[in-house]
Amino acid sequence: MNINIDQANRTAVERMMAARPVLKDIRPAREVIPGMHDKLLLHAGPPIAWDKASGPLRGAVIGALIFEGLATDEATAEALITSGEVQLEPCHEHDAVGPMAGIISPSMMVYVVQNVTHGNVAYSNLNEGYGKVLRYGAYSPDVLAKLRWMNDVMGPMLAEALAMMPDDLDIRALLAEALHMGDEGHNRNKAGSILYTAKLAPLLVQASGSMADKSAVLKFLGENALSVLNPVMAGCKAMAHAGHGVEGSTIMTIMARNGTELGIKVSGLGGRWFTGPVGQPDGLYFPGFTAEDANGDIGDSTITETAGIGAFAMASAPAIVTFISGTPELAINTTLSMYEITTAEHTAFTIPALGFRGTPVGVDIRKVVELGVRPQINTGIAHKNAGVGQVGAGLVLPPMNVFEDALVAWAEMYL
Amino acid sequence: MNINIDQANRTAVERMMAARPVLKDIRPAREVIPGMHDKLLLHAGPPIAWDKASGPLRGAVIGALIFEGLATDEATAEALITSGEVQLEPCHEHDAVGPMAGIISPSMMVYVVQNVTHGNVAYSNLNEGYGKVLRYGAYSPDVLAKLRWMNDVMGPMLAEALAMMPDDLDIRALLAEALHMGDEGHNRNKAGSILYTAKLAPLLVQASGSMADKSAVLKFLGENALSVLNPVMAGCKAMAHAGHGVEGSTIMTIMARNGTELGIKVSGLGGRWFTGPVGQPDGLYFPGFTAEDANGDIGDSTITETAGIGAFAMASAPAIVTFISGTPELAINTTLSMYEITTAEHTAFTIPALGFRGTPVGVDIRKVVELGVRPQINTGIAHKNAGVGQVGAGLVLPPMNVFEDALVAWAEMYL
Repeated sequence: MNINIDQANRTAVERMMAARPVLKDIRPAREVIPGMHDKLLLHAGPPIAWDKASGPLRGAVIGALIFEGLATDEATAEALITSGEVQLEPCHEHDAVGPMAGIISPSMMVYVVQNVTHGNVAYSNLNEGYGKVLRYGAYSPDVLAKLRWMNDVMGPMLAEALAMMPDDLDIRALLAEALHMGDEGHNRNKAGSILYTAKLAPLLVQASGSMADKSAVLKFLGENALSVLNPVMAGCKAMAHAGHGVEGSTIMTIMARNGTELGIKVSGLGGRWFTGPVGQPDGLYFPGFTAEDANGDIGDSTITETAGIGAFAMASAPAIVTFISGTPELAINTTLSMYEITTAEHTAFTIPALGFRGTPVGVDIRKVVELGVRPQINTGIAHKNAGVGQVGAGLVLPPMNVFEDALVAWAEMYL
Repeated sequence: MNINIDQANRTAVERMMAARPVLKDIRPAREVIPGMHDKLLLHAGPPIAWDKASGPLRGAVIGALIFEGLATDEATAEALITSGEVQLEPCHEHDAVGPMAGIISPSMMVYVVQNVTHGNVAYSNLNEGYGKVLRYGAYSPDVLAKLRWMNDVMGPMLAEALAMMPDDLDIRALLAEALHMGDEGHNRNKAGSILYTAKLAPLLVQASGSMADKSAVLKFLGENALSVLNPVMAGCKAMAHAGHGVEGSTIMTIMARNGTELGIKVSGLGGRWFTGPVGQPDGLYFPGFTAEDANGDIGDSTITETAGIGAFAMASAPAIVTFISGTPELAINTTLSMYEITTAEHTAFTIPALGFRGTPVGVDIRKVVELGVRPQINTGIAHKNAGVGQVGAGLVLPPMNVFEDALVAWAEMYL
């Protein structure tokens, strides 16, 4: 076959950069996510068998089944999964993404983000904030009570506010602005989250609901420095997916972890996952926790790096090193080294500290294998046991074999 | 006299850094500003005679007199001033600061900021946003209508929200956070303004007033990237003033411009102004305007540089160069050169891009004169004619003679 790989990759990355994701709605997952049904839970990363699932993923599954009223405790939850009565499938197989365990259950309110350039849609759940939260595997009554409040009070109010917006809320424009305000869009979303809050506030005030509820929603959104992470992830999914399916392209369009394995998909290689064991993040721990407590790398949030932000835009976010470890020089150097394995400089996302250079975007698996330089990931760190929660944040790398395996598969398909 | 200048300067700058300004209230100027009365207008910079006043200062005085109901047009306004019926005095002589023309009239709502470490209080007016606004010398009916809305609707609502805050709104903490989010606190206050909006939003919702008014206030605050400039300026005034009055100290505690002259005061030199002609800013102009339209440097907002932020913290704000001209390297180098003429590295304000080094704080007039390095100023640019408004933003320097004159005065007093 006569394939011009460079041309295919340019096409893929140009589609990624041309994609303009806008936040359209917030709706129950079962009403909008393709293939969602009442006995299905979506999870982060590539497919996984229950007996291989790590603590935080198990904890989040248990919590979601209790949240849905399908189980009452750990034992009844586990029975639903092992009997096959409730199925587990990757978010990514349903155009969705979820941070950390990434569990999306049928009743959960999800962000609906459309790439208005190419029409594809992506979904993500609502962000719960830091600490003891479902996505890190915690499922105590207070965790579930907060989820119910988010679903019953905050979600519908946000949806009503969004519907009142005169213009669509443009996730790409918001991210571009946040990158000029010290965010990298993955582990640092301080600026994006308050930009999001400030945009919604004048409309939230006019939504239905009590003053007390409106005040509580504005407080929750404004004080949670990750409020915007989930719509940003859905935006990145919508952008990355626009580059998928280009014949011959060696551009990575998915990178995701389920806590046990990391999987990637490649633009020219269809629906096939290439998987390998997750790395162990190296970072800073919350008081009372150490590296001994850490689970392996987990979550779909690496869709940010896949779309050219997150660790790839770390030069924009020197203050992030207080959270994930390292120095401001590391932040700059991380971005610089990502130019070596990518295909383009982003036309929408620029880095002031690098003279407004575009962020590195479109990981070419050929370059990763050839140079031995892997895509850098910024990540939160979950406790390895179900029921605990977040214990820190840090840096991690994907396993090299996923890029090698994908390149072999590419050769088998195209040469 | 046996003066240890270095020790005196350390004392002055340590007092500046120990000062913790918090936003206490928003009240009509006549009720709170010391010495304010019904026939007094405060203005930016050192004292000025009416026949020396530049266009934007004149325009703002005319507008304020119409706003107060004391005049009906330019002629009646001017008569009030030239007859001496209404007096003009510097904001700084009343513990106040105002951006650009800096006019504060008796009815205007002002921020009340207290340095809770040392007890002193500082004041500033409410920010009107960009473009055609009183502080740039515009006074058309729409300008005055907006001022009335700010005074009658927004001010009281903000005051009510502030009073509901469980803790004082700490301006120093807010600024410290904003400096990690790409602000420098003078010409770039994007992050600070939405931090301010997001903090107030949950309380504003519960204030009295209609939904429509609350929504309008939240929209105005959130969309005005200078919303927080005025409380920040009052905070800087409260900090800088804490370093004033230390015997023998050569630290600058005021730098301010009235559009014709720039004046400084020095910690060990009492109430005396040292003045010289203002510089002409060099910067970027809004569409339709050029350097030909620019007024000389104007405003009390250089209290930010005096307190160790603004241009002194420009390394925190590389994206600012799209607004004021220059390159990200210029931003870094500006901060680095300010270390040469200052006394300390700020313990509360740090710069991630410089490895979290504290901002340069406490300009020592000895070093300015010895090295020939003047304090850098970031500034907005006003049209030279009354009634027009802002035409751009840029960089400017104070005249060297003010430092030389102050140093001579110091020698006369202490040697």
